[in-house]
Amino acid sequence: MNRTYEKLQEYLDRNQALNTALILLDWDTATLAPKAATEQTARMVGILSEEQFNSIINDEVRELMHQLKEPNEWNQLTDVQKAVIKELEREYEQLEKIPVKEYKAYAELAAKSVTIWEDAKTNNDYKKFVPVLEQIIAYKKKFASYRKKKGQALYDVLLQDYERDFNMEKLDEFFEKIKTELVPFIKEVIHHSKDIDKSYNYLAYDPTKQKEFCEFLAGYIGFDFNKGVIAESAHPFTTNLHNKDVRITNHFYKNNLESAMFSVIHEGGHAIYEMNIGDDITQTLVGGGASMGVHESQSRFYENIVGRNKAFWEPIYAKLQRTYPDQLNDITLDHFMKGINLARLSLIRTEADELTYPLHILVRYEMEKMIFSQEVDVHQLNQIWNQKYKEYLGVTPPTDTAGILQDVHWAMGDFGYFSSYAVGSAIGAQLYEYMKKVMPFEEYLREGKMDQISGFLKAHIHQYGMRKTANELLKDTTGEEFNADYYINYLKEKYTELYLQ
Amino acid sequence: MNRTYEKLQEYLDRNQALNTALILLDWDTATLAPKAATEQTARMVGILSEEQFNSIINDEVRELMHQLKEPNEWNQLTDVQKAVIKELEREYEQLEKIPVKEYKAYAELAAKSVTIWEDAKTNNDYKKFVPVLEQIIAYKKKFASYRKKKGQALYDVLLQDYERDFNMEKLDEFFEKIKTELVPFIKEVIHHSKDIDKSYNYLAYDPTKQKEFCEFLAGYIGFDFNKGVIAESAHPFTTNLHNKDVRITNHFYKNNLESAMFSVIHEGGHAIYEMNIGDDITQTLVGGGASMGVHESQSRFYENIVGRNKAFWEPIYAKLQRTYPDQLNDITLDHFMKGINLARLSLIRTEADELTYPLHILVRYEMEKMIFSQEVDVHQLNQIWNQKYKEYLGVTPPTDTAGILQDVHWAMGDFGYFSSYAVGSAIGAQLYEYMKKVMPFEEYLREGKMDQISGFLKAHIHQYGMRKTANELLKDTTGEEFNADYYINYLKEKYTELYLQ
Repeated sequence: MNRTYEKLQEYLDRNQALNTALILLDWDTATLAPKAATEQTARMVGILSEEQFNSIINDEVRELMHQLKEPNEWNQLTDVQKAVIKELEREYEQLEKIPVKEYKAYAELAAKSVTIWEDAKTNNDYKKFVPVLEQIIAYKKKFASYRKKKGQALYDVLLQDYERDFNMEKLDEFFEKIKTELVPFIKEVIHHSKDIDKSYNYLAYDPTKQKEFCEFLAGYIGFDFNKGVIAESAHPFTTNLHNKDVRITNHFYKNNLESAMFSVIHEGGHAIYEMNIGDDITQTLVGGGASMGVHESQSRFYENIVGRNKAFWEPIYAKLQRTYPDQLNDITLDHFMKGINLARLSLIRTEADELTYPLHILVRYEMEKMIFSQEVDVHQLNQIWNQKYKEYLGVTPPTDTAGILQDVHWAMGDFGYFSSYAVGSAIGAQLYEYMKKVMPFEEYLREGKMDQISGFLKAHIHQYGMRKTANELLKDTTGEEFNADYYINYLKEKYTELYLQ
Repeated sequence: MNRTYEKLQEYLDRNQALNTALILLDWDTATLAPKAATEQTARMVGILSEEQFNSIINDEVRELMHQLKEPNEWNQLTDVQKAVIKELEREYEQLEKIPVKEYKAYAELAAKSVTIWEDAKTNNDYKKFVPVLEQIIAYKKKFASYRKKKGQALYDVLLQDYERDFNMEKLDEFFEKIKTELVPFIKEVIHHSKDIDKSYNYLAYDPTKQKEFCEFLAGYIGFDFNKGVIAESAHPFTTNLHNKDVRITNHFYKNNLESAMFSVIHEGGHAIYEMNIGDDITQTLVGGGASMGVHESQSRFYENIVGRNKAFWEPIYAKLQRTYPDQLNDITLDHFMKGINLARLSLIRTEADELTYPLHILVRYEMEKMIFSQEVDVHQLNQIWNQKYKEYLGVTPPTDTAGILQDVHWAMGDFGYFSSYAVGSAIGAQLYEYMKKVMPFEEYLREGKMDQISGFLKAHIHQYGMRKTANELLKDTTGEEFNADYYINYLKEKYTELYLQ
């Protein structure tokens, strides 16, 4: 190994080890840790975050990076090492302008805020969450202002943390298309599907059986239980320590069959991505998913394009019926397909159907844009939320629990993340349109050959981790950069076939 | 705060935060992490262990300790700060002679070895475990030889890591008493109790119901679910991040009623200790239990002196019967008492009764003494184990799974730990004899006033953490240092009353 890189490796190792510890603490707080622990544990998270910051933001690392960019050194490096240094430069640039004490204080705040949000959500008490949210927004604004390039908008700084290839200009264009193309189409679909009976979905479904069936589903799509575990948490999520330790969570509602099933397929999609990342890059700076948009493209690809596809259910729907004979024996597969795809204007993002989903994202995108381009009174955000739901979805949340408190993201400081879900859905559709050209996609699903699907995604997307951006992955795979038209067309075609013919 | 101490505090904070991370990684590996993760995660554990080592073993800390011992500085310190510095000096002395690279390599090995042991145990394959055990023993010998004082035996170095007030001389005396006093007594008890029917214990007991009842038991003795959680693992254990995050595990055997119940009371005893440690010392170097002996004194106190006491069951036995009416309605409380205390020469330490338990420890103590005072062929240790079980307990393990592979301790490098269980039992008996004089002990149990018991232990033992040694705690509480006679007498009295009258 190049001697200079070897020296850098020690810093990278420390950074990686501290990162592993912080991820595990985060996972543990969300899934298991006792309630009274939060405050004291958060202090430790603050200290470890400071350590992690210092592990790479220091003069030695800056000097080593500089040396390694000299041609005589650079030419000795492997491709992975080059990618790691580029990512390190990017992270360095993101962090170096933030004072370490503020970074630490923010990390400590973030480690406590999820518990406070949970409490507020449980008790429908937005007021209790306001002081924390105010602090988080203030930190995010301050950090973005340290980091922004000349003339750059604060919100663009945040957006690009999750998706390098995007900014407000591109997203405005994307959401404009959704508004003009999809909103009228949604109305038509809803009108024509209003008589479909989905009451079967809300019968009683034994949570233990749900859990078992969801484990089956995870394994069926390719989740490797030797390298991963499934736990429970209020809000399903995926995390990983490396490519052989990938964790997802799920939740079970007795009176909702779909919720847990599509959650496990969604998180399973994230997990398969992380499990397929190459051994040569896991536990390095480029060993995660390419971006949040690409990550969500995989989870929403599995959830919707695979999981809400008739061909996917053909070989396994009988098994689902056998699991719940009383509830499903009279429900045909065609009826079930119309049920799991049914579009409805609703309150909760994570329970939304594929078609109206981007409208939920639109609300959050517009709110975030507003928060980061003007002074907002955080006390009023719940009302603004409700007005936007009324405007775009025609429904008004009866409580803040079903409104602004429904998602964990802002409590975690993840502003700029939400748009990734819509972008991800669009990337997924673009990949799907290409895959159908090069493989018998639905035939593979019908034959249960899930490894053909995951094999393609591994070869073209997963294995590269962060070594390619979203647009590079799309270009190299499909020959074309991001193009939202595929998404619009995919939705129109699918929903026309299901409900308008 | 004293300015010099303030500087030291930064190092202590880092040490504490890294320790928290390492404890959590350890817990996670034992309870949840996927199998394939071990190797890659262990590398991170090695790096974090090196960081933790370096956080206190460095010139700055040595210099700060030195400065703080100067009278003008020392006199400014609080009692807790003084205790922390004394403990820091002790840890410094233990670690400074070990080369950090060896420390790191050992930590990495230890992070993998438990998984390898588990595999070997599951497959009754001692051979597979031998290479790991050889390496662990070699490291333990090497580290002890770095650290030993002139003329000190290697095994004494290890023993004193767990129990400062003990060494081979004292333990030889202790175990000799057990051999001469207890071995003949045990034979007599077994002879007179041979007709007691305990078959009820091995009927089918629904694990879900077991779990519920064990949760009730934990809460009943004082485990605070706001500050703690119960998970599952192959080998029950207790761990904690601080006094508001205390975790125990349990395991459930369908055909054994007692196992999980007494495990949860045992681990609950450890947990109550950690939960009762003062807020002023938690998350400091003196914020853990005083020693392993004192820790086991609390767990075994709860398990045996409380949990196998008739007065404890009087208010709750009916609840147990209601939980399992088919199995227990015909079993009277007196019969149940004779069942849960029944002495039998058996194979498995963790399932052993209170009376024969120290013989299981005797086997391990003699083996460890041998391992660390001579060259041993690790391949032969399983046979030596079996011979000693034949000699002291009259039974020969049919497999290594039921023999040398039964305990996790050696896989974790915990040589010198086992004697703490016997010493702890004796400390517990000594405390019990004193408590009976100053409070209506059995009356409290009969009335379910468990807080009277835990209140006394908190006031006299728990709150102090490591600020007092085992002998200091005993002297300050009972007026007398460790005296094994209380233990021998307690066992003889209890078992005479139960089976010889």
